[in-house]
Parts: sequence; C-alpha cells; structure tokens
Amino acid sequence: MASPIAVVLLSGGLDSATTAAIAVAEGFDVAALTLRYGQRHGAELEAAARVAEALGIARRLVLDVDLRPIGGSALTADIAVPKDRPADTLGGDIPSTYVPARNTIFLSLALAWAEVLGARDIFIGANAVDYSGYPDCRPEYLHAFERLAQLATRAGSEGGRFTIHAPLLALSKAGIIARGSELGLDYGTTVSCYDPDTAGAACGRCDACQLRRRGFEESGIADPTRYRS
Amino acid sequence: MASPIAVVLLSGGLDSATTAAIAVAEGFDVAALTLRYGQRHGAELEAAARVAEALGIARRLVLDVDLRPIGGSALTADIAVPKDRPADTLGGDIPSTYVPARNTIFLSLALAWAEVLGARDIFIGANAVDYSGYPDCRPEYLHAFERLAQLATRAGSEGGRFTIHAPLLALSKAGIIARGSELGLDYGTTVSCYDPDTAGAACGRCDACQLRRRGFEESGIADPTRYRS
Repeated sequence: MASPIAVVLLSGGLDSATTAAIAVAEGFDVAALTLRYGQRHGAELEAAARVAEALGIARRLVLDVDLRPIGGSALTADIAVPKDRPADTLGGDIPSTYVPARNTIFLSLALAWAEVLGARDIFIGANAVDYSGYPDCRPEYLHAFERLAQLATRAGSEGGRFTIHAPLLALSKAGIIARGSELGLDYGTTVSCYDPDTAGAACGRCDACQLRRRGFEESGIADPTRYRS
Repeated sequence: MASPIAVVLLSGGLDSATTAAIAVAEGFDVAALTLRYGQRHGAELEAAARVAEALGIARRLVLDVDLRPIGGSALTADIAVPKDRPADTLGGDIPSTYVPARNTIFLSLALAWAEVLGARDIFIGANAVDYSGYPDCRPEYLHAFERLAQLATRAGSEGGRFTIHAPLLALSKAGIIARGSELGLDYGTTVSCYDPDTAGAACGRCDACQLRRRGFEESGIADPTRYRS
C-alpha cells in the first residue's frame, strides 16, 4: 500500500524542518510547500531546498503569494526587525514580526494543494511555547482551521476529514531540537534568523535567533548556526 | 466621524460588483481587494478596475497569488471549461470550475489586509442559491471562517470582532441583479464568463453565462452583456 501523502509547510527554519522530519518519520509521503511571500531574505528559501533534499522529499512546490503590498509586519514591510529584546519578554506580547493572518493564508494554500493531491494531512510547525505571542500558533486556532477545512472543500463536503498536525505545539525550543536531532536532522541546513546577512549568517539578536540559541543551550546539543555577532 | 473601513473582495464579476455596491450603500469606506490568481482571462481584472471606478472606490489592492501550480480547476489549469450543461444541473454537483479552497485563500488575504487597515468588516459575494455547488459558498462555511478570524489575528486576540458579510447569500441571480440595479450599478462594466474571448465578449454557454443570462431574464432587466454566441 502506498504511503498517505501529507502536505508539510516548509519554510527552511528550524521548526518547519523538524516538522518535516517528523512527518517523514511517521511514514507519510511528504509534499513540501514553501511560500515565497516577500520575506526580506532568500536565505530561508535556499534553506527549504536544502532541508527537502536532506530529507529525501522529492515532491516540492514553491508558491508565490506576495504579502508585501499588505504590509503591517517587520518581516514583509519597511519596519525594523526588533533586536536584543530582553529574554523574559519573548513569548509575551505580539511583536512587529507578526505577519497578519499568515498561518491562515499558508494553511489555506496547503489545504488547496492537499485537496488536489488527495491528501488529508497537513503539517505545520506551529509552536505554542516559544511562539513569540503569535495568535495563529495557538491550539484553539489550529482546531478552528481543521473545522473550517471540512466545510471549505469538495473533499470535506464529500466526507473527507482533514487533519492539521502541529507536532511541535507543546514542545520547547530545546525539546524541538532534541526531537529533530534524534531523527538525524542536520540543523546546519536551516535558517531561523529574521535578518541574516547576504552570506546567510544569522544576526544572533532578533527574537528568532535568541529563541534558537537558547534552545541549543538548553538542549545541550552543539549549535551549528553561523552567527555574525 | 469617519466611516468604518470594509474590505470587499472584488473580482469584476456580477456578484462581487453588487456586493461592493451594497457595501458602499451601507456607508462603509470600501477597500477593494482583487486577486490575480492565474485565472485564464484578464477581462475579469479589467472589469474589477471599471467597477471600482464607477463606485468611487479609491482604495484598491491587486494581489498576486498564483494558484496555477496547484491546479485542480478548469479556471486555473488546463482542464476544459464545461459548456452547455443542462440548466437543471447547475447548482447541483461541484463542477470542474471549483478552485480548491479558493474562498479560504481569498478570505484569509482579505483578513490580513483588514487587520492592517484596522477594518473589522469583510464582504464577499458568496451566494448559496445559484452557487454552482461550491462548498465554500455555504453559510456554515462563512460562519466557520468568521470564528477562525477571531482566533487567527492580533486584532481578534485583543478583542476585535470580525464580521464576514455575504449580502447575496440568500438571493437568486435575478434578485442580485434587481438589488444592484436599484443601487444604480451598471452591469455592463462586469464580466461573469469563465471563457471570454480576447475582446471580452462572453461565451454564453459556460455555467456562469447561463446563470447570468437566466438571471437577467427572470429579473426583467435588460441584459447589457456582450455575448459572442
């Protein structure tokens, strides 16, 4: 029997790479969806390609959905990426790197591709512990999307049940790194930094870098990240 | 007091044009969102611009989200648009012009822009009577999206309530045409055909043309559509 297909949202960051590794380990035939949404750096897109190759994922789709004209985020508009925020504020308020409705946009595109592929499983690297306060990483949000998916599609109206898998939801960053490392994932292929330099070196100071660096420290696993500071 | 802003999904078709006219008539400061998603014809995009101009809508955004690589629909992939289907089958099954998860993708982009604009109202021309069997035009789907919007956004997590307005939901095509005509809408500016020729003339035979033509007949209002057959 052929493995069931799962669509995995793969950005090239640490979380989505771990999510893809988990989906592969669970026996899914993974279809990796990468969104080119006008994020400031191409480093993330190159990382997504490296991660897919390392995991042996042959079915890939890079879709363009340009969110820059919408604005409202430090990741897509001309707003400074916050740096050096005190560690105890991370995960509290919603920072300027929040992209309005991003996970809803990404999950809806994943849902469309899943329906065409005949897949009923969608994986997203959402995380409710170190989620930096993004509302669309909360479990109640993901459950609401799952319910919507049944109503939104031909497959759902014909009785198909979609499942949104968020295997990182309850893990700390250290826990995520430990899980991926168990699965043999090389985190040197991933990029988390919101503001890498042109050579792909991480700033070490944005929220994503701080959460990542602390995660490696707490996990006791060597950090392969190239920091410029 | 300034009018509240509403984001209106405006495709250039008869339904969305009527929806925009209703939003204007209800006193909203309309922001028109048009999605360039790889539909086969540019006629629809030109119609959206004409409709916005006729309604005095100054705030417009045309976003690119290319759904062609996803495929699965006669509107975006190399699948023939069905023609001359018997009238009594329209509205029954889900036809090949269904675009997987389209309204979910469109509403999520509208939600993102609404959040950036500070708007809490989103209008969509979904219609449950002549909806050609699309699952994402049903009232239960729209209610599920409304619930999702509260959870998906910073605005929702801070207590803002989003409303998805679908003023055409319970109207027949004839009823929609009558409502728009009351509001002074010139349907000659709109394009419904799934397969117009290069000069913008409608085929007269696809589901959209058949529903539109029958709507004008039943409304008793003169049909300004240029048909080539």
